[in-house]
Amino acid sequence: MKNIMVEIQYDGTNYSGWQIQPNSRTIQEEIMRALKKLTGKELSINGSGRTDAGVHAYGQVASFILESNIPVDRLPLAFNSNLPNDISIINAMEVPMDFHARYSAIGKRYIYHIYEGRYRNPLLRNYSYHVHYKLDHKKMRDGAKLLLGTHDFRGFMSSGSSVENTVRTIRNLDIIIKDNSLYVYIEGDGFLYNMVRIITGTLVEVGMGKISIEHINRALETKDRTVAGHTAPPQGLFLDKVFYPLTH
Amino acid sequence: MKNIMVEIQYDGTNYSGWQIQPNSRTIQEEIMRALKKLTGKELSINGSGRTDAGVHAYGQVASFILESNIPVDRLPLAFNSNLPNDISIINAMEVPMDFHARYSAIGKRYIYHIYEGRYRNPLLRNYSYHVHYKLDHKKMRDGAKLLLGTHDFRGFMSSGSSVENTVRTIRNLDIIIKDNSLYVYIEGDGFLYNMVRIITGTLVEVGMGKISIEHINRALETKDRTVAGHTAPPQGLFLDKVFYPLTH
Repeated sequence: MKNIMVEIQYDGTNYSGWQIQPNSRTIQEEIMRALKKLTGKELSINGSGRTDAGVHAYGQVASFILESNIPVDRLPLAFNSNLPNDISIINAMEVPMDFHARYSAIGKRYIYHIYEGRYRNPLLRNYSYHVHYKLDHKKMRDGAKLLLGTHDFRGFMSSGSSVENTVRTIRNLDIIIKDNSLYVYIEGDGFLYNMVRIITGTLVEVGMGKISIEHINRALETKDRTVAGHTAPPQGLFLDKVFYPLTH
Repeated sequence: MKNIMVEIQYDGTNYSGWQIQPNSRTIQEEIMRALKKLTGKELSINGSGRTDAGVHAYGQVASFILESNIPVDRLPLAFNSNLPNDISIINAMEVPMDFHARYSAIGKRYIYHIYEGRYRNPLLRNYSYHVHYKLDHKKMRDGAKLLLGTHDFRGFMSSGSSVENTVRTIRNLDIIIKDNSLYVYIEGDGFLYNMVRIITGTLVEVGMGKISIEHINRALETKDRTVAGHTAPPQGLFLDKVFYPLTH
């Protein structure tokens, strides 16, 4: 009996998100189905967290208990030959028995891709948020700075979450510009429901001049969701990396 | 009556290529259908050349005669609202009446994307050629140099083409490496049927050590298709830009 951690890439376009649910196609379900084919057993797997429908991952992490003699270094190829080609296991390793993909995580990094071209780009339609306006990048960077550090981010959370402690720490928030694309890199100890997409939508509105950067401070102070900007659409969001302590 | 040139981006994944043909979904047909919606007329459009099923474009060019009062600068949005979202018109301009997207072209640039990761990348599955082997980039660059300049490229052409003059000039052939990706940039006065994909397949085999770079010279000399490497798959190929004289 081994505890196994896997890193997973996926194109979320054709899925209802990570988490298994009735009458929907989900990433978690596909991986559990592949695992059953490999082991003959119905094993549950734990993800580092959910991703919504249409959201992608370069480095989602999941863990599960494996009762099988398959060598760990053969797991990625064995999984991939049983998975649809929009999901891929890119790493597998044995971890201590107390490792849990969700509870052991100490941070996450997301990338949000905004496409600023004048006309839509068909090659990016499922992988970016197309903003027709010319954005003021300096204002967006000024706004981003206000979000750095430890704050109560309740004003940047969608309703429908039962989380009680809404204090989170954003360690890094960088905006990288390349051609007509803006990549928002955001790293923190954890994120509330839709937090990255609301932060992105707010920064986009700041960049459009629709709201001022004072709105960011006000959303933090009042904790009122209606003060911040809109929730940016799912297809621009990528779960890039999940961080764990070195001891794991 | 105006002669109009348009630049077109498309994701070729769900199409049988550029050229209109019965019982298949093609890019040309979709654009002609949109043009008919805009003008009420069945107008033929000329592309700079065909692209195969699964091949993409950042800058395909087409031209057509427009009998309509739509202002030219409104054409992209007017087109795009009548096109599926995997095709986009990104530029439109009036050109002299003797301009023809195919016959006026003086060159083209293609980009071929090779993905060298150990495991498949689901986000690149429709947009790259996944090569599992570690490639020798230096050998590939040495091989690329042999193809530069003016040669008879008959040995790098798939059968099924009725072209008689198979002499072409490659002006630039660069291999750009970024993370686990290799981008083959190839620019020339024109390309034979499958020429870019055969050149790429040959460079990949050189990079794998499966054939030596002498095979490239031999394929040029003998003009025998069986000497060069395989035809790389379509989904890694992007028509990047079509060049015209400044007078057009």
